[in-house]
Amino acid sequence: MKSPICDMLGIEFPLLAFSHCRDVVAAVSRAGGFGVLGATAHSPETIEQELKWIDDRTDGKPYGLDVLIPENISTAGEKDVTWKSLEARISPQHRDFTRNLLKKYGVELTTTNVTDNQPQPFDAQRALDVLEVSFRHPIKLIANALGVPPKQMIDMGRKHGVPVAALVGSKEHALRQVAAGVDILVAQGTEAGGHCGEVSTMVLVPEVIKAIKPVRDVPVLAAGGIMTGKQMAACMAMGAAGAWTGSVWLATVESETTEIFREKMIAASSRDAVRSKGRTGKPARQLRSVWTDAWDRGPDSPGALPMPLQSIISRDAFNSIDRAAAAGNVQARDLVTYFVGQGVGLIDSVKSAGAVVQEFKEDFADAVEHMNMLMEE
Amino acid sequence: MKSPICDMLGIEFPLLAFSHCRDVVAAVSRAGGFGVLGATAHSPETIEQELKWIDDRTDGKPYGLDVLIPENISTAGEKDVTWKSLEARISPQHRDFTRNLLKKYGVELTTTNVTDNQPQPFDAQRALDVLEVSFRHPIKLIANALGVPPKQMIDMGRKHGVPVAALVGSKEHALRQVAAGVDILVAQGTEAGGHCGEVSTMVLVPEVIKAIKPVRDVPVLAAGGIMTGKQMAACMAMGAAGAWTGSVWLATVESETTEIFREKMIAASSRDAVRSKGRTGKPARQLRSVWTDAWDRGPDSPGALPMPLQSIISRDAFNSIDRAAAAGNVQARDLVTYFVGQGVGLIDSVKSAGAVVQEFKEDFADAVEHMNMLMEE
Repeated sequence: MKSPICDMLGIEFPLLAFSHCRDVVAAVSRAGGFGVLGATAHSPETIEQELKWIDDRTDGKPYGLDVLIPENISTAGEKDVTWKSLEARISPQHRDFTRNLLKKYGVELTTTNVTDNQPQPFDAQRALDVLEVSFRHPIKLIANALGVPPKQMIDMGRKHGVPVAALVGSKEHALRQVAAGVDILVAQGTEAGGHCGEVSTMVLVPEVIKAIKPVRDVPVLAAGGIMTGKQMAACMAMGAAGAWTGSVWLATVESETTEIFREKMIAASSRDAVRSKGRTGKPARQLRSVWTDAWDRGPDSPGALPMPLQSIISRDAFNSIDRAAAAGNVQARDLVTYFVGQGVGLIDSVKSAGAVVQEFKEDFADAVEHMNMLMEE
Repeated sequence: MKSPICDMLGIEFPLLAFSHCRDVVAAVSRAGGFGVLGATAHSPETIEQELKWIDDRTDGKPYGLDVLIPENISTAGEKDVTWKSLEARISPQHRDFTRNLLKKYGVELTTTNVTDNQPQPFDAQRALDVLEVSFRHPIKLIANALGVPPKQMIDMGRKHGVPVAALVGSKEHALRQVAAGVDILVAQGTEAGGHCGEVSTMVLVPEVIKAIKPVRDVPVLAAGGIMTGKQMAACMAMGAAGAWTGSVWLATVESETTEIFREKMIAASSRDAVRSKGRTGKPARQLRSVWTDAWDRGPDSPGALPMPLQSIISRDAFNSIDRAAAAGNVQARDLVTYFVGQGVGLIDSVKSAGAVVQEFKEDFADAVEHMNMLMEE
């Protein structure tokens, strides 16, 4: 396939795969897609190792990096906010609620050790430092979620000749991003896993394309709910330049997800993927569990704290929950959850990432052939 | 185009247009689509007039009828429930809240006169009586929303050789409908106007198709957010048999919508279409207005009553609101709302229904050509 986005990214099949797992990123790029490593949790040191690992396994095939620099965060404007300093801002009420919730399911809440200078979750400067290091590697895309990227990020992309992408959940966000100078938009519908807005992929993709066209003709990737090549073809029939995917890679053998979460994904229907503030403080789609229920509608819920505080609560909690569940505590399973989109309803087995890319290509071709047959008859 | 659904309905382009307005139904069927008249508000007498009017204007082209027989309604099991008897069940608190809300915007709440034997809104027997009369006309489809159609409705379809369709918002509903014997499923995503579930069209369509296939190969129409032939092509690329549309017809010259609501639709973005219980007591997508805000999140909201009680409240209220707005009360405009999907963000002008059908056909062909060009390059 030849298209502007394929030229920009140096690929032939515009299937982008977001994953926190280097194995998935490398496997997708090797198979002809484009892996994008979620780098939010990394430091400049750890990202260096990850990208070296990927370089050793991608035979020069292109891949990219994704960071998460929120425009709106409760610590905005504060300097050098550390993880430890934020821990003191979590009210006893929130701590107790979390501890009691876990206790009810036989899980003891333990606090994760962090170093004194560990930056806050989603720290902008840390993300920029991670990006800076990454340009030593042959990355072909940098992407940002949760707002317009800082000017330094856009400038970095320009300097290194690497396109800058941004995730958007509404037409209004898309227009702001184009004005700020991003090169690629990812129009992500409400059905997507992780942070998401309220507009569906079916509506958002044409709405964003239509809105930005008179301003600047930026390629728009479709995201949200896309688990198959047929859905990718659907989005491209509406004018999308390609697909940005996430959830589908969680059910691959390479992915970072726990065995228990995989089993839950396979059992889930699309209605089990709920939009909740319970994990990060901003609405993010994840598998419904007693955790999301307790925060969203528990009668004694203190309400989620704003980002980044809720992420500190949930990191401690899920370290405890996942450890207990893996150790065989069956009650802990009821708490287990992770980010996943409504597309979870289409997951029924675990495959290799390479096989998923291959299936996307075949399904895409089948969809085009199906459309041609309809037109001919 | 030739396909099982085209054969079933006697059409060549599987674009179904739901409308409460006979003008739209006739215009769409004449233009080569398939109009479906929303008959919920009709009596056997008024439907007879409507269908005669349509027959006189469709040159024998096929059309259908849609009713709304809720499986879950607060009056279930009661016999001969009249509109008047339900009025007494509305609490003074709900009446006062409604009256005060309207008053705040300069609108006096007046009660609509109904006859003593006027049946309750969404009365099942009335819907069946309406259908019975309709078979005197050459209708080619009967459809039901809000649950599995009663056995009498499915039997009526069988007896007259007319396929029975049902709207579904989840895989679980689809499986129940197929077991009950419906002939066509309408998989309607959360982005749709009117009553809707939570799963998006992009996910629901393939999820429903996949779920029912091992049971019975029923054609699945896609609904929710579809405003253009490109989106219709997208849905069919995912395996949908065609498109079921609603909101797009509200912005046609033929439609029943008020001038004020049209202006609001054109000004709206997709995020302005909210899912609210404020109109009927069940979640239904409609344009956000001070009415939906007040019921959904007003600090003094008494909460929407269950169906059919909330419909009685809102009928009186919107008769008063629409009359006041039309008479030039500018404050009343803030209250005006009507059912519409997220696709409202794609509406930017008012066209004739025939022109919309023609555009769908052209956009559909363009989308297929676009896909072929991508594959060739």
